[in-house]
Amino acid sequence: MKFVAGRGYDTISFLSDYGHGDEFVGVVHSVIAAIAPHVRVVDVTHGIAPCNVRAGGLALARAAQYLLPGVVLAVVDPGVGTDRRPVAVEVGDGASVLVGPDNGLLAPVVALVGGAGRAVELANADYRLENVGELGSTFDGRDVFAPAAAHLCRGVPLSDLGPAVDVATLTPGMLPVSQRDGDDLVAEVLWVDRFGNCQLNVDPAEVDEMATAGALQVTAGEDLRTAERARTYADVAPGRVGLVTDSSGLVSLALPQRSAADELGLHEGSEVRLTTAAAGDRRTGSPSVVTPVGLSPRSGGPAGPHILEGGRP
Amino acid sequence: MKFVAGRGYDTISFLSDYGHGDEFVGVVHSVIAAIAPHVRVVDVTHGIAPCNVRAGGLALARAAQYLLPGVVLAVVDPGVGTDRRPVAVEVGDGASVLVGPDNGLLAPVVALVGGAGRAVELANADYRLENVGELGSTFDGRDVFAPAAAHLCRGVPLSDLGPAVDVATLTPGMLPVSQRDGDDLVAEVLWVDRFGNCQLNVDPAEVDEMATAGALQVTAGEDLRTAERARTYADVAPGRVGLVTDSSGLVSLALPQRSAADELGLHEGSEVRLTTAAAGDRRTGSPSVVTPVGLSPRSGGPAGPHILEGGRP
Amino acid sequence: MKFVAGRGYDTISFLSDYGHGDEFVGVVHSVIAAIAPHVRVVDVTHGIAPCNVRAGGLALARAAQYLLPGVVLAVVDPGVGTDRRPVAVEVGDGASVLVGPDNGLLAPVVALVGGAGRAVELANADYRLENVGELGSTFDGRDVFAPAAAHLCRGVPLSDLGPAVDVATLTPGMLPVSQRDGDDLVAEVLWVDRFGNCQLNVDPAEVDEMATAGALQVTAGEDLRTAERARTYADVAPGRVGLVTDSSGLVSLALPQRSAADELGLHEGSEVRLTTAAAGDRRTGSPSVVTPVGLSPRSGGPAGPHILEGGRP
Repeated sequence: MKFVAGRGYDTISFLSDYGHGDEFVGVVHSVIAAIAPHVRVVDVTHGIAPCNVRAGGLALARAAQYLLPGVVLAVVDPGVGTDRRPVAVEVGDGASVLVGPDNGLLAPVVALVGGAGRAVELANADYRLENVGELGSTFDGRDVFAPAAAHLCRGVPLSDLGPAVDVATLTPGMLPVSQRDGDDLVAEVLWVDRFGNCQLNVDPAEVDEMATAGALQVTAGEDLRTAERARTYADVAPGRVGLVTDSSGLVSLALPQRSAADELGLHEGSEVRLTTAAAGDRRTGSPSVVTPVGLSPRSGGPAGPHILEGGRP
Repeated sequence: MKFVAGRGYDTISFLSDYGHGDEFVGVVHSVIAAIAPHVRVVDVTHGIAPCNVRAGGLALARAAQYLLPGVVLAVVDPGVGTDRRPVAVEVGDGASVLVGPDNGLLAPVVALVGGAGRAVELANADYRLENVGELGSTFDGRDVFAPAAAHLCRGVPLSDLGPAVDVATLTPGMLPVSQRDGDDLVAEVLWVDRFGNCQLNVDPAEVDEMATAGALQVTAGEDLRTAERARTYADVAPGRVGLVTDSSGLVSLALPQRSAADELGLHEGSEVRLTTAAAGDRRTGSPSVVTPVGLSPRSGGPAGPHILEGGRP
Repeated sequence: MKFVAGRGYDTISFLSDYGHGDEFVGVVHSVIAAIAPHVRVVDVTHGIAPCNVRAGGLALARAAQYLLPGVVLAVVDPGVGTDRRPVAVEVGDGASVLVGPDNGLLAPVVALVGGAGRAVELANADYRLENVGELGSTFDGRDVFAPAAAHLCRGVPLSDLGPAVDVATLTPGMLPVSQRDGDDLVAEVLWVDRFGNCQLNVDPAEVDEMATAGALQVTAGEDLRTAERARTYADVAPGRVGLVTDSSGLVSLALPQRSAADELGLHEGSEVRLTTAAAGDRRTGSPSVVTPVGLSPRSGGPAGPHILEGGRP
């Protein structure tokens, strides 16, 4: 192989919507190992719902502060083969490089770690698999992204992978912001985890503030429930819905040993209204809206996936 | 990092109910690699049904004799964040250490490998992630258990992780024991595997003894079927239900190339009655009961997950 | 351990129908690491449908050209424990060895890489786990195949694993060949991937040739749709079904950001008829037939999983 002069990396953290039912993940692992045998690949998750760019971006953001320095390979790519740009984005003064499609998938984690440094478009055919084109343009994870990630680990300089991209032109993330509606808080389910806990786009401090005004209530669809702040899933009292500060530092709806999502009929994207008993009768309010938000780590605290800063009226 | 004086380990065998749909497993891998980069992590399975402590304990027991010496990290933890103790339990004179919640999950494997040596509660904050508390107490796999497992691998002595725990106070496993009801054997499905084979809490010797009295029959719900001892899944004759000595050394109900669970309407916890045609008409008998049992490896034979010793009337 | 004189390998590429719900995969990894700690195990996939030998063989063939040289461990084995032979098959002048049951699973990949060199039956008890027999003959992945793969990696010569097998007696793969029916092409769905794309047993050149005669149409069940050649999934026009050259070099039916399988009611094995509008009214034709085919890499081009050579009338 060519002489390489870049810094190189030891780890690739790999996230995708490939699932484990097909051989996609195994093929990508093989491609990486063939190019950069020394690399440790950590599978962040491959369970992102097919083509769900937002869910992929949020999962990466939740995991981000725990990932090893190195390359992050993220592939949720409904526009594979089209003119959306395949990119590599340096963050943290080059401590890490994010590799994936420029479709908003990388935006939440870029924002969390302090914004993009340099970026390039993965256009250099020397660092793609040779079969690109002959076999169809439907598996860039194998043909474009994994080779780029592996070559970066070998020490290929970022600038060799392709022409520079103005980071201001990178696709932003579109994330829903919770809304005040009078005394109510209109929120959205960002994520339903395996246990049925429903993560909301709500900061614990907001709920704590609301709780000073009266008993908390949660409205999901037609269902109005008494809620309570709880420290753990098991602490939620019978008949109540727990509002738990979760492992990402956001508020999750939770029930002990059963699925809040199933019981409340919630799924990713569902609207949830938080009220207090004192706030009186329920209003029909504006739904949560989708806004491009500038994501940033919480100031003055540990870096964490707090996605709610800014943009609230 | 600190100077460490323990023996250290090279392997963490990791089992959980985290599934692969979320980023939980990837985050735990990342935390381990950050603390103890030299460690090989073997994923035993993460497919335990959410919060099913018994199923997790049984899977670990089935796998136990094949696992590498080292640390076993097991997390099925419905009481996460409550006062259930996070523990590390030494077994095999320190050849291995089991790390997980003290909720019965570890009990079957502890018993199988000859009982616990020393044990400690994972209370030392130096060996937890610093963010514990700030981010909620809902992901101890990341914040408490994985760091403890990784620090043990680095050579941190067990006693540094927290105060000693009297091993007699560790939560025992609760496993169903099959029951004689006259000439019948009333058993329970311990596990339904991917292929629909139904593992029973029955030793092959018991079935072989019953078979000397006449043709075997299996009753599942309202369904009475002719059964037969079979050496392999494919050997089961058409129209029969196979009673196969499975890879754990227990009896499994099986059908060739299709799911016995689906065809017989069985799931984990279902009651199954084994009879012989000679035993005459069917009795309505006592259901299988749940008893705390002292698990032990079969004496005079290879260590294996034989969970049926003792406790039978 | 014994002195070993073979060449040894560094990688095992592992495919099975074990799924991730049970501990099967973790146990096999543990067995390999115990015997050959230096080996990198790449999980190709474990999501093959239970006992679906054909699907396993096709997945292995699709992945084959990307796998690292070394040992391929493939286990989809409905006849486990019967007299079907467990085998190891050398390919590529010993660059790789395929280990698995001789039930047709290995046939597609053997053909793709140029045919078998030497082969042996895995009969030598020295290279099986000692517990074989005592624990039932239901998990040869653990007891027979994984130990053989690991010992090969350690350098045990192929010939030590058991008696030579005449490669002409290895079970051939049975793959459906698409059929001309007048101007129509009667094809079969080989694979439905996670995204709902339906891979057909059709070469892109055939479709391109048909397209010169008129607008393409796809008939699936009672459903007749206008089709179009498309370079990527996202390029398929609204109301059309895409005929995309996929990442294996075959034709897949695809729809942008949704499942073609769901929308057209297709599954693995479904018949699909390709016609041109010019071909006039639809004929009721012969269904696709199953024929033993001699698989071979496409001549004069990059090795790829083109399974359609030969055997067409």
